[in-house]
Amino acid sequence: MSERRLLMIPGPIIFEPSVLRSLSKGHLSHMSTEFTKLFAEVLGNLKRLLFVDDEFKTIVLAGSGTLAMEASTTNFIRKDDNVLVISNGVFGDRMAELLSRYPVKVDLLKVNSPGEVVDNGLIEERLKEKNYSLVAVTHVDTSTAVRHNIEELGHIVKDYNALLVVDGVCSVAGEEIRMKDWNIDVVLTGSQKAIGVPVGLALIWLSPRALDRLKETNARYAPYYMDFNKWIDVMDSYEQLKPIYFATPAVNLIVGLHESLKLIFEEGLENRFRRHRVLSEAFRKGVRSLGLNLLAKNDDIAASTVTAVYLPENIDLSDFRREMASRNVIVAGGLYPSIKTRYFRVGHMGPVNANDIASTMATIERSLVKLGYPINLGDGLSVVQRFLSEHGF
Amino acid sequence: MSERRLLMIPGPIIFEPSVLRSLSKGHLSHMSTEFTKLFAEVLGNLKRLLFVDDEFKTIVLAGSGTLAMEASTTNFIRKDDNVLVISNGVFGDRMAELLSRYPVKVDLLKVNSPGEVVDNGLIEERLKEKNYSLVAVTHVDTSTAVRHNIEELGHIVKDYNALLVVDGVCSVAGEEIRMKDWNIDVVLTGSQKAIGVPVGLALIWLSPRALDRLKETNARYAPYYMDFNKWIDVMDSYEQLKPIYFATPAVNLIVGLHESLKLIFEEGLENRFRRHRVLSEAFRKGVRSLGLNLLAKNDDIAASTVTAVYLPENIDLSDFRREMASRNVIVAGGLYPSIKTRYFRVGHMGPVNANDIASTMATIERSLVKLGYPINLGDGLSVVQRFLSEHGF
Amino acid sequence: MSERRLLMIPGPIIFEPSVLRSLSKGHLSHMSTEFTKLFAEVLGNLKRLLFVDDEFKTIVLAGSGTLAMEASTTNFIRKDDNVLVISNGVFGDRMAELLSRYPVKVDLLKVNSPGEVVDNGLIEERLKEKNYSLVAVTHVDTSTAVRHNIEELGHIVKDYNALLVVDGVCSVAGEEIRMKDWNIDVVLTGSQKAIGVPVGLALIWLSPRALDRLKETNARYAPYYMDFNKWIDVMDSYEQLKPIYFATPAVNLIVGLHESLKLIFEEGLENRFRRHRVLSEAFRKGVRSLGLNLLAKNDDIAASTVTAVYLPENIDLSDFRREMASRNVIVAGGLYPSIKTRYFRVGHMGPVNANDIASTMATIERSLVKLGYPINLGDGLSVVQRFLSEHGF
Amino acid sequence: MSERRLLMIPGPIIFEPSVLRSLSKGHLSHMSTEFTKLFAEVLGNLKRLLFVDDEFKTIVLAGSGTLAMEASTTNFIRKDDNVLVISNGVFGDRMAELLSRYPVKVDLLKVNSPGEVVDNGLIEERLKEKNYSLVAVTHVDTSTAVRHNIEELGHIVKDYNALLVVDGVCSVAGEEIRMKDWNIDVVLTGSQKAIGVPVGLALIWLSPRALDRLKETNARYAPYYMDFNKWIDVMDSYEQLKPIYFATPAVNLIVGLHESLKLIFEEGLENRFRRHRVLSEAFRKGVRSLGLNLLAKNDDIAASTVTAVYLPENIDLSDFRREMASRNVIVAGGLYPSIKTRYFRVGHMGPVNANDIASTMATIERSLVKLGYPINLGDGLSVVQRFLSEHGF
Repeated sequence: MSERRLLMIPGPIIFEPSVLRSLSKGHLSHMSTEFTKLFAEVLGNLKRLLFVDDEFKTIVLAGSGTLAMEASTTNFIRKDDNVLVISNGVFGDRMAELLSRYPVKVDLLKVNSPGEVVDNGLIEERLKEKNYSLVAVTHVDTSTAVRHNIEELGHIVKDYNALLVVDGVCSVAGEEIRMKDWNIDVVLTGSQKAIGVPVGLALIWLSPRALDRLKETNARYAPYYMDFNKWIDVMDSYEQLKPIYFATPAVNLIVGLHESLKLIFEEGLENRFRRHRVLSEAFRKGVRSLGLNLLAKNDDIAASTVTAVYLPENIDLSDFRREMASRNVIVAGGLYPSIKTRYFRVGHMGPVNANDIASTMATIERSLVKLGYPINLGDGLSVVQRFLSEHGF
Repeated sequence: MSERRLLMIPGPIIFEPSVLRSLSKGHLSHMSTEFTKLFAEVLGNLKRLLFVDDEFKTIVLAGSGTLAMEASTTNFIRKDDNVLVISNGVFGDRMAELLSRYPVKVDLLKVNSPGEVVDNGLIEERLKEKNYSLVAVTHVDTSTAVRHNIEELGHIVKDYNALLVVDGVCSVAGEEIRMKDWNIDVVLTGSQKAIGVPVGLALIWLSPRALDRLKETNARYAPYYMDFNKWIDVMDSYEQLKPIYFATPAVNLIVGLHESLKLIFEEGLENRFRRHRVLSEAFRKGVRSLGLNLLAKNDDIAASTVTAVYLPENIDLSDFRREMASRNVIVAGGLYPSIKTRYFRVGHMGPVNANDIASTMATIERSLVKLGYPINLGDGLSVVQRFLSEHGF
Repeated sequence: MSERRLLMIPGPIIFEPSVLRSLSKGHLSHMSTEFTKLFAEVLGNLKRLLFVDDEFKTIVLAGSGTLAMEASTTNFIRKDDNVLVISNGVFGDRMAELLSRYPVKVDLLKVNSPGEVVDNGLIEERLKEKNYSLVAVTHVDTSTAVRHNIEELGHIVKDYNALLVVDGVCSVAGEEIRMKDWNIDVVLTGSQKAIGVPVGLALIWLSPRALDRLKETNARYAPYYMDFNKWIDVMDSYEQLKPIYFATPAVNLIVGLHESLKLIFEEGLENRFRRHRVLSEAFRKGVRSLGLNLLAKNDDIAASTVTAVYLPENIDLSDFRREMASRNVIVAGGLYPSIKTRYFRVGHMGPVNANDIASTMATIERSLVKLGYPINLGDGLSVVQRFLSEHGF
Repeated sequence: MSERRLLMIPGPIIFEPSVLRSLSKGHLSHMSTEFTKLFAEVLGNLKRLLFVDDEFKTIVLAGSGTLAMEASTTNFIRKDDNVLVISNGVFGDRMAELLSRYPVKVDLLKVNSPGEVVDNGLIEERLKEKNYSLVAVTHVDTSTAVRHNIEELGHIVKDYNALLVVDGVCSVAGEEIRMKDWNIDVVLTGSQKAIGVPVGLALIWLSPRALDRLKETNARYAPYYMDFNKWIDVMDSYEQLKPIYFATPAVNLIVGLHESLKLIFEEGLENRFRRHRVLSEAFRKGVRSLGLNLLAKNDDIAASTVTAVYLPENIDLSDFRREMASRNVIVAGGLYPSIKTRYFRVGHMGPVNANDIASTMATIERSLVKLGYPINLGDGLSVVQRFLSEHGF
């Protein structure tokens, strides 16, 4: 079967062919000079990606985004700590569920309905009420395609004692994150999203403040495999080109990450973030012009990396996805439990370009018409085209 | 730089990722059992592709399409033979130029203007006038994107003594060719077109009548490397799983061809030809709706594998191609000498799908607007969408 | 730099080229029919690999072998449980260290000196003394290259209440493990060892008895990411071809695992285990014939997947490894803390063949001579050759 | 089936993994800036490979080595020219057979028995006797593994009117060729030999004197596809980064050639030629020590890229090759017609290293013993080891 389909789901994404090819490199020891240099470059480039300097640490672990969530929080907790979890969707809820296994008191501050983000003012009220040791928030919740204003939140949280942990699984390398300027203490992501490498790497960034907290907690409640004390030593050793061993790093995926980061910096971060913004706005405008509604309540909180779209009343999600797939465009179903059969999600991050957006819109139009939804073919595309054209695409 | 561009030129085309990966297979001797089986399957599948049986022979040579043209004719000539070359464009002219190096008398029957095809009635008149030993015709001329009706021509030529040689470089695997039913004696192509494998293989099919002629000529005027007597023995030996050596076959490209043919038969020939027809017609309709003119005088002779489009008067070809390329769609310039800066060509063969057509049309629209051509963005796309939708795409 | 080196370390190993190529497959959703079928086949083949039936469960997680160790034990513990860890080397010690983070009482039964394995009789004595809920043992300790007799141990432990957890990181797919017949409850491994896939997958097998225990513990102390209740549901759903989502499976690595398992079963398990036995014995005989000593006290406990060899007194490990590397053979240094600069380790698992053994032995000979060690070049090779020849290699 | 076999035949050879991976690059137009730069670098590096400057031309054609032979001679002939072909084996004979199709008078000067090379003194005698326009010689004849002293021959021929054409199919990039200093006019090779790229490229180098002759002949007798006038324009255009089109260049194979040349110059030409010399001598010494005879009459004329070895009287070639293959080493049978079942050939060019030589020797020993040939296992290896060690390998 042809592999020439567009994988427009929010991860795994469409990968750069050169990244995929690089995975096939063989005969590479995790302790070799060649790999060590390459890994050191990866660690340095990861810092540049979030605009941080060498006071910050980056950690690359074999594992998925969920592992990154667990590692990024459990290393910083002390018994009976108060933890505030902000939930804008499924992955905020997951963070709360995850932390509830540990000896901390979790307060969950949640949106009223999917498609909203928690108001930063409300968060500040909570911070005033109770002494939280940690605030965790999802930057872009993959389930509802909304984006939290973490810049604003960072400026709020810095006046409190809490570490700010940002789940950037669906945002890092697609949305701008200025970790240092925005006062964020921990950022985490997974490789298969906007950073553009197949599933299997958990990536974490730590601020000096997070490192201080780690000294305090000594990673007492972190799982052994996720103990940052061990991992920081390993990462430092690679950065100093004198590798030590704890658990074997995921050599081939890291080679892929090296290639992907190279391409990211060739494009330039400003260009990259702008591309994600313009393409996503074009797509949202196109979808809305067909009479479809988005989950995101307004454009200010709509993510640049993924869009969640309600289906028309009488169109079945499975039917719709099957029609799309038969036309070589793969979209995801809903994920927010109460409404998950009523909407679909389109990922548009990483190397996605205007051609992918045009193809996806064209395919949505024809699939909807096939399923009896009354639109004029081309109307959504016209809107997309005009927006792209106005923005120089 | 991102490799995620659409290579919409008439060869090399967009290749299937699995075909590209298969090229990397190593450690394969051209005399091994593994390669022998695979090559035998290739030779068999090539026959199925043109709907011929085992009385026909297929030959796979390392070389390009031009080599295939030379091999496919020079093996069949005798001193002072009359040869009739039908030229619908650059590649017909090339065939005449090529044959003029050999001791034959070449008559060239040529279109009056690019975008036409030579009338089969005129060809028959010539056949009546002189005793031709060989008639050569380009099925789809890549330079002007027209398609000759070779079915009709085959039925005419069979009543004469001439062998009918069809240059299928830009048609095989994209346009239907029923070599046996249509009385065609020799078909040739190159790997980098609709058959979907990187440049480097010349492919030739021979009818029983061509094989008889070969006995007569004994390949006297063919270059040594192209001597079909030698190659038929080699191909027979592979088909019988007892390989012999003449010149080393292009192992890795043949592995790629094996994979590509596998995918072609998974799709099914009927589906494949229909896909090419529908997509090309959609594209032509879209382009025309923008006020652009095609080289092809009418739809009956417009190729399904490539389209040639006149640019608006005041738009420069280099500018246009650069705008397209900056949007990740690569199109070709003109090739017909007298007008080559006035038109562009779009290849849409092999694994091309509706998404590629939509993306290309969208990019043409935005590029034209960028260059000041007054159209409504989306108009061409609407036409494409309606046509695709009506035809179940 | 040429990649044509022999990576003779105990993981990552030399991978099959077709496994490496398969990693480059793109555009594959973790929820697609294509991936679902492939993953279901992987899960089934993993069961065949350990000779177990469908009452057993297999789990594939993104992560490394250390994660597999943590997941494979923490799911089965209850507060204040007694846990017996058998340590034959570094990885046994690691298991004890890991478990000491959890609310269980860990007893560590350890070898007196590196190169021994703990006596199964001593283990049984301990089992009689105290009510252990879990016994953990390393099948082959990568640090010292010894193999524990887990068949015998399984028959002992089955009469007690304890679950038997076998760390098969350096053994699965290289050493025979008949999980069901040998009464083993949990087996774990990592992908980059004898199972032949780049780093990044943690693989776990569970017996019905382990599943019963899981019901009891409800995975109370397992990290969230490692909660087998969640993962078993996910794996069951893939086996039933109706995938559900928890954390995104490592698609590309699982594609690689599919290919590797295909090759493993093409070879046949009996052939594969015999190959590992013969090649490792040949290598040990060759090394000993040069006057070098092995860590493994005797051949009965010497692993088939890795060999640990003491260097001659006056030869420096870094010098030796550098000489080897300059000759394109990569070996590992020591890992057992007290002696780690005094020995080197050679991995010979996965697709390693007699050529690799001969090359490695030849390179060891020349490297030693270069460093002044007095041997006759060819002596070790002669021993290797005779043993291989006698065994039909 | 495992691909981890050693392909020790004289082409296709073992390719560098990075070369194989590079073949999979897609979406690359033959007219793109990216490909143009890359091709220009290839053309420049090809010149460096033969130590020539920009007065020389390099041509890269889709085709095999036999095509290169035909192109490299037919471009330079005039009607009734006298041509002298030196035959050291099958490929010299082939050159004569090939030229006999053209209107020239071919004199064949041939060895008395396989394993010899024609004496350069005899060639000079012939040159004195008759006015030859062209002398063609095989540098290393793949069929008998002998190497002609072309440096000496070049110094002889330069005093005559003849162009010296060297068939370097089995030597370029494995044996030193100083084309300019040695007064060689034309060198040709194929990609699948020591230059390290899968089958499909014919490579030709032309001296200023050859270019002058070309002006004279105007390529009158060259096949159209091989007309150097056309190709030189194409190559010049790529070198000037302004590509023109004649026949589509073999994009993906040229990408592979780019990577292979990069690796060749990373190693350094001196290192590379020395490696070939030392490894081949080690191999010959090893084989002889087992009592086997080489075809090459003495070491001075034994090639560094391939060795031809007589089998012991009572050992069947098919049996021997099958035993070798079952041990993952692929060797070639004989090719010289009168004795082709009595010897085997081992290619050792391109990225072949000492490990491959040791493995091949080890496998030859065990295969011979299996077939009843009385040797002491390890004896050949000891000789190989000592020679390698003495030469710093």
